[in-house]
Amino acid sequence: MERHFDEELQGLNNEILKMGAFAEEAIFKSVEALKDRDKNKANEVIANDKFIDELELKIDEKCLDLIARHQPMAKDLRFIVTGMKLNAELERIIDIAVDICQRVLELADKPLLKPLIDIPKLAGIAQNMVKMSIDSFVKRDGEIARRVMFSDAEADQLRNAIQKELVEDYMLKDKSTTPRAVLLLLIARFLERICDHATNIAEDVVYMVEAQVVKHHPEKL
Amino acid sequence: MERHFDEELQGLNNEILKMGAFAEEAIFKSVEALKDRDKNKANEVIANDKFIDELELKIDEKCLDLIARHQPMAKDLRFIVTGMKLNAELERIIDIAVDICQRVLELADKPLLKPLIDIPKLAGIAQNMVKMSIDSFVKRDGEIARRVMFSDAEADQLRNAIQKELVEDYMLKDKSTTPRAVLLLLIARFLERICDHATNIAEDVVYMVEAQVVKHHPEKL
Repeated sequence: MERHFDEELQGLNNEILKMGAFAEEAIFKSVEALKDRDKNKANEVIANDKFIDELELKIDEKCLDLIARHQPMAKDLRFIVTGMKLNAELERIIDIAVDICQRVLELADKPLLKPLIDIPKLAGIAQNMVKMSIDSFVKRDGEIARRVMFSDAEADQLRNAIQKELVEDYMLKDKSTTPRAVLLLLIARFLERICDHATNIAEDVVYMVEAQVVKHHPEKL
Repeated sequence: MERHFDEELQGLNNEILKMGAFAEEAIFKSVEALKDRDKNKANEVIANDKFIDELELKIDEKCLDLIARHQPMAKDLRFIVTGMKLNAELERIIDIAVDICQRVLELADKPLLKPLIDIPKLAGIAQNMVKMSIDSFVKRDGEIARRVMFSDAEADQLRNAIQKELVEDYMLKDKSTTPRAVLLLLIARFLERICDHATNIAEDVVYMVEAQVVKHHPEKL
């Protein structure tokens, strides 16, 4: 029975890794679709969402089933419950990638407002934060999780810089750019929300591993 | 032992009700602060956030402790796990009210762009959806939860109408309105995200009560 339980926990690890890989891919593709104004790529991410939703439910059920059948003690219980939280965060991250792709569909027929540099950079940070946050969970490594949390400030700053540039250098100078600039502004905010979700995951992992509340306590970083 | 467990479940209900009441209050106050350009009120919501964060952790620990000590069977386990999910959603809702209040602080010194009608209306929908979603949980009532899910489409439409008006009637007509219009646009999006969180709660409740997956399956409404 013990060995069986360990195998099932390993299975949960693998499912979460798979969900994490889908999340990274969705972020990457959404920004590729934006850069290339590629409606097909945007539609791929949107179409994949149904499959992701089913995977989320499957993982959620697996977690509940593990708790109900094995009645795990504190440490394993905390691991499984953290897995449920991660699962929900990852599904939201992919939902946000879908939101980005819907904005991409609106932008795809219009001329590009400007060469995109900072938005792909922000997407790279987001993708990396998601990757590291999942890594911290499967390795149960609080140090990796803390590195994710540090990156969030960088993401915030970049989002603010993008927003400032779009308002001051585009919308305020030439209002014909406003509809496109608003869409890019929303995309930057979506990417920064993905970073927030990765930070949520990291905070949950630190709590799981170190029984330390860093959530809402930045001074403990 | 059985009676004790029931009392503890009732205690969990009460904590969630308390968190729900704080969430409703935060939404209400954030939009009052916006309408009255009242920085003090906005700062009150922002200052209260620390206390909410602690309440969230306390409820989360209580849930884990209930599972670990009582090893509840499927139905009660599902109730407690749903409670944990609601707790997280409510904390995020209050975080969004804080986001709104930060935008209110930026707007407070500037002249009002327009008389606010639709934003307070959207806030009213959001507040009501949160109230009903909590109600559906404590009463374990899938019908109330379904009503919450129906309201989400109305919130989406209103958010889109607000965004369209701000872009077309303000930003595109007089670009000096753009900085204020962008802030109002973000506030409308924040309110609609609160509605999304209430919808998440409602979906979790339907699943808990009816073991029916309505999450991601609008046709089952």
